[in-house]
Amino acid sequence: MNPDIMKERQNATFDVEKLTNILDGGPEKTKRRREIETLVFNDPDFEEEDPNFLSRSERYDQAVRKSARMILKMREYGIGHPDEIYFFKKCVHPSRPEPLDLHLGMFLPTLLNQATPEQMDRFFMPAWNLNIIGTYAQTEMGHGTHLRGLETTATYDPATQEFVLNSPTFSSIKWWPGGLGKTSNCAIVIAQLYTQGNCHGLHAFIVPIRDFNTHEPLPGIVVGDIGPKFGYSEVDNGFLKLENIRIPRENMLMKHATVEPDGTYVKPPSSKLTYGTMVFIRSLIVGNSALFLAKSCTIAIRYSAVRHQSDFRPGEPEPQILDYQTQQYKLFPLLAMAYAFAFVGQYMNDTYNRITGDINQGDFTEMPELHALSAGLKAFTTWATNAAIEVCRMSCGGHGYSCSSALPDIYVGFTPSCTYEGENTVMMLQTARYLVKSYQQVKAGKQLSGIVSYLNEAEHWRVQPQPVAARPTVVDINDLASLVEVYKLRAAILVEMAAKNIQQELQRTKNQEDAWNNSAIDLVRASDAHCHYVVVKLFTDKLGEIGDTAVHSVLSTLALFYTLHGITQNSGDFLQAGLLSVPQVMLISVRIKELLSQLRPNAVALVDAFDIHDKSLNSVLGRYDGNVYEHLFEWARRSPLNSTEVHESFHKYLKPLRSKL
Amino acid sequence: MNPDIMKERQNATFDVEKLTNILDGGPEKTKRRREIETLVFNDPDFEEEDPNFLSRSERYDQAVRKSARMILKMREYGIGHPDEIYFFKKCVHPSRPEPLDLHLGMFLPTLLNQATPEQMDRFFMPAWNLNIIGTYAQTEMGHGTHLRGLETTATYDPATQEFVLNSPTFSSIKWWPGGLGKTSNCAIVIAQLYTQGNCHGLHAFIVPIRDFNTHEPLPGIVVGDIGPKFGYSEVDNGFLKLENIRIPRENMLMKHATVEPDGTYVKPPSSKLTYGTMVFIRSLIVGNSALFLAKSCTIAIRYSAVRHQSDFRPGEPEPQILDYQTQQYKLFPLLAMAYAFAFVGQYMNDTYNRITGDINQGDFTEMPELHALSAGLKAFTTWATNAAIEVCRMSCGGHGYSCSSALPDIYVGFTPSCTYEGENTVMMLQTARYLVKSYQQVKAGKQLSGIVSYLNEAEHWRVQPQPVAARPTVVDINDLASLVEVYKLRAAILVEMAAKNIQQELQRTKNQEDAWNNSAIDLVRASDAHCHYVVVKLFTDKLGEIGDTAVHSVLSTLALFYTLHGITQNSGDFLQAGLLSVPQVMLISVRIKELLSQLRPNAVALVDAFDIHDKSLNSVLGRYDGNVYEHLFEWARRSPLNSTEVHESFHKYLKPLRSKL
Repeated sequence: MNPDIMKERQNATFDVEKLTNILDGGPEKTKRRREIETLVFNDPDFEEEDPNFLSRSERYDQAVRKSARMILKMREYGIGHPDEIYFFKKCVHPSRPEPLDLHLGMFLPTLLNQATPEQMDRFFMPAWNLNIIGTYAQTEMGHGTHLRGLETTATYDPATQEFVLNSPTFSSIKWWPGGLGKTSNCAIVIAQLYTQGNCHGLHAFIVPIRDFNTHEPLPGIVVGDIGPKFGYSEVDNGFLKLENIRIPRENMLMKHATVEPDGTYVKPPSSKLTYGTMVFIRSLIVGNSALFLAKSCTIAIRYSAVRHQSDFRPGEPEPQILDYQTQQYKLFPLLAMAYAFAFVGQYMNDTYNRITGDINQGDFTEMPELHALSAGLKAFTTWATNAAIEVCRMSCGGHGYSCSSALPDIYVGFTPSCTYEGENTVMMLQTARYLVKSYQQVKAGKQLSGIVSYLNEAEHWRVQPQPVAARPTVVDINDLASLVEVYKLRAAILVEMAAKNIQQELQRTKNQEDAWNNSAIDLVRASDAHCHYVVVKLFTDKLGEIGDTAVHSVLSTLALFYTLHGITQNSGDFLQAGLLSVPQVMLISVRIKELLSQLRPNAVALVDAFDIHDKSLNSVLGRYDGNVYEHLFEWARRSPLNSTEVHESFHKYLKPLRSKL
Repeated sequence: MNPDIMKERQNATFDVEKLTNILDGGPEKTKRRREIETLVFNDPDFEEEDPNFLSRSERYDQAVRKSARMILKMREYGIGHPDEIYFFKKCVHPSRPEPLDLHLGMFLPTLLNQATPEQMDRFFMPAWNLNIIGTYAQTEMGHGTHLRGLETTATYDPATQEFVLNSPTFSSIKWWPGGLGKTSNCAIVIAQLYTQGNCHGLHAFIVPIRDFNTHEPLPGIVVGDIGPKFGYSEVDNGFLKLENIRIPRENMLMKHATVEPDGTYVKPPSSKLTYGTMVFIRSLIVGNSALFLAKSCTIAIRYSAVRHQSDFRPGEPEPQILDYQTQQYKLFPLLAMAYAFAFVGQYMNDTYNRITGDINQGDFTEMPELHALSAGLKAFTTWATNAAIEVCRMSCGGHGYSCSSALPDIYVGFTPSCTYEGENTVMMLQTARYLVKSYQQVKAGKQLSGIVSYLNEAEHWRVQPQPVAARPTVVDINDLASLVEVYKLRAAILVEMAAKNIQQELQRTKNQEDAWNNSAIDLVRASDAHCHYVVVKLFTDKLGEIGDTAVHSVLSTLALFYTLHGITQNSGDFLQAGLLSVPQVMLISVRIKELLSQLRPNAVALVDAFDIHDKSLNSVLGRYDGNVYEHLFEWARRSPLNSTEVHESFHKYLKPLRSKL
């Protein structure tokens, strides 16, 4: 063990294991997690070549190999609970997507939700046993966020009782579905349904795309990989062009809507249930933000503890870079954020599970609020994490740029979550729509409940043209509850500002859509403030659950730091609204520096508590033992360009050049 | 041509060619640039396979091939002026570094500056003719920014009149030099010189590392590639471990310092000249920020003009995404920034050339200021550009994540500039050191000149605990000169705050280094404000040079927009210092929305004016003709994973799996 990092661990003021248990949700869950890790990481069948040393095709190949084994082993070990499946997958493909993701995560669940019993009989078991490998083909080259714009058509032909599917334009080619390019032999295709001359909107169709034996594309099917991407090299995101593809009527998923043999269309009942899935996926994304952030902080903080640089005090040894105020100021806010997001993820997951119970009993009351909140929090946490990973990477200097740090891979693996499952700006506007609607309800005399209930107090806060001298004195910048109030008021004021802006625009443009679009900047700002308030509140609430004094103390410091740092980053908002005075903002800057020093001795212990296995981290800089330099050398020597001493390009180009000059 | 983008061009209010001329520095320069582009882009010898479709080794191979041809062709065409060489290289390897960069950019220039006439005779012509291919080996695995910490030793042995070079530890292994891994047969190695029992600090030594004929590493030399990186796949950044390597005394570069045959060390005279090189390189980096930003904006804005999405007005066609306020608010600030940085780059280059003239006449007066300024501006522009590229990429939705957009490649090619040639935080602190020193000189009664002369007025502005009601009324938020004043005062106030903080810390800690470190956050903030002021000022100054009314008008709008947007992003600073009032800040938000609408019709024309050749852009989304979708499909079909219909992994893993389930 590197002596610097050993000393860091000795200096910690709390029991790391206890904090790990809190993050896992209890000591039993920590234990079970480690059991699964041992199963995977000690299994020679799951050993892999560092993907950084492989070509795109080899990376895909290795991922398919591991996915095939993963399926066998999970059945062998009887791993069946969704949480455990999710975790097992995360060990086999650490922080990486894999070619069967859509088969397991979208194709099978969609069958479960939308197939009739007859369709279940025909498709489910073959899919369960990988005779059918499926994907979910929704997004098209020209259509992503706005689903109603999809162009793929499925036209019913009563003469043969078949649907005829077509991709009428370039922009209608299915584009992006994972596993579509090479892996799948079947796709659930989302298309505009036409029957008896009418369009009935989007429906799902099961379309075979490759021969089940030879795996060759079927006639009329143009399918392939969409080409190299920033990351996701393990996944064959694909394209699919349909040219007069005929499928039997029974291949439309008909649990809800149906097309009868003569072509009569029968509408589905209400579809409120689809809300739930989105909330669930977005809560996973929030948890995933916390995980990626935790990994990045682990790497950057451990490395900062073993890296020495510069002539801080002439004549003395070079200091650990973690002792630089600027380095602390880069990393500690992200460390605090990782904890904040971890607790937000727990809350969303718990709430989802609770509400799902209610829904099963027909009670949808809380769903719209959670749905709206999940959209904004998805955007808030992924944007913040996206930027944070890069701060971590760059805080490691040049070595952060090497793939050996793992940070490039972490970034490119994470950044799509700002776009998929709802593009972030669109998500922010969705939350804003809910906030403005809630605000208008208050104006109309309704009393709100839940997390937006602060809008009830609309009469008590007013947007002030100048700071109010009286109010700020009551804010105690060392008291979390008091600070949460301030964040709440900021959100309330920005929601009101956005709502009033829409009103003004409406008077000017006389057009609802233009008024909304011309207020979009304010709406996103209001959403952001709302989400920030929720995060600060949930972090603070979590402290109440923590019994251990030492852990409570360090987490309280982190929460206070997160909250105050957020104020300095948005000080304009707080000053503009008169929520804080200039002397308070200046005091907060001083307090933040004190908190940096206070957090410094626990920094390594706080990342250790994330308990991320070295094999899952796959980072030379982030190794638990801190022995960075010797392993950096060892890693470089293994890299493919060093398999020969002389690269062929010398003989091909450089040597011949000499004679020509 | 795509009809949307054609319409955009028709709507422009100014003559694009005139603006292009301004960016190039005159119509003749535009003409010459296009001549060189034609030479390269029409030459079949420079045709290449899209690097995104190649493995690391193939990318390196292709780059070596093109570099070898580049050298031949430049000599054939008689391209010899540094500006033209730089430009020719940029066409051959668009926005990509190449294996001979360090040979041409560091090895040859270092010989010119530091070799004796005898050494020039021995080394220069062989290097010019690529018999010697050299690199510059300074950075070590454990030592980057802090040069004095380098560990490589060169010990003089008078018995044989040789230096013995060693890498005594893992952390002393040379790490990162471009072209070191595979390409070079020789390196200028920076090492601690030991002779007659004393260490005389860092000196440069010419060390042969590979056999000139076979290219095999020489005995005692452990050399190779440092492995895959985030980007820079064309470059063999390398490692070098020296094990008792003996070189003749005459291989130390002795133009300045010398070691005599008996081992006597003779000191060099003053070394002020090295300043100049750093300033020059940093001014190139600022210009490079502008270029990368221009490329990213070109892609994102053209794509936003042809992409349609969402149900803005039910029943009407989907709008161009460029019509969304949020999209404009993402992209137009970056477009304005690209122009700002282009003009800052021009200014730095001009100033460097002017001052170099002075220096040749022995006048170093302006150098320290430009040196300090260049450090901060390098950090300011690269950080902003780094973040901006990613905003551009994500503003293209999913397709931005595809390598076909070129944005992933642009990002990974640019981001190292935040770290190399001076890590950004260190650069900011260097500028801060100059600012604080200047402030202290004013306090000591000295009158400053140049760009920091605003610190002379220290008595007129004071940090106010509360906003001053009197001052803000004089600020006219529509008047650039008035806004530049406000930025200047912000910088002055933050410099004073940082300087006072150091004083306070000094009283507490009694230690200069701790006081500095404990003020580092404030120092970086002050530097940032100073640089922001300089950028705003230079952008405004540039407007005075522009004669054409229509171009002047659109650039004035851009400059005003850049300036006001900067205020909203840092509104806390301006409110805290009492430089602007709350109503003013609110008015600025309104004004910004008006300016978005005003810029909208010229957005495409403003990126067209950058005049970036499609071959240089290499982006399907950013094509000049706007025909995105059909070319996206064509690009994907060419990708290597589609060279066969069935990937071998199906037969290896997926098909056999069926029988086991």
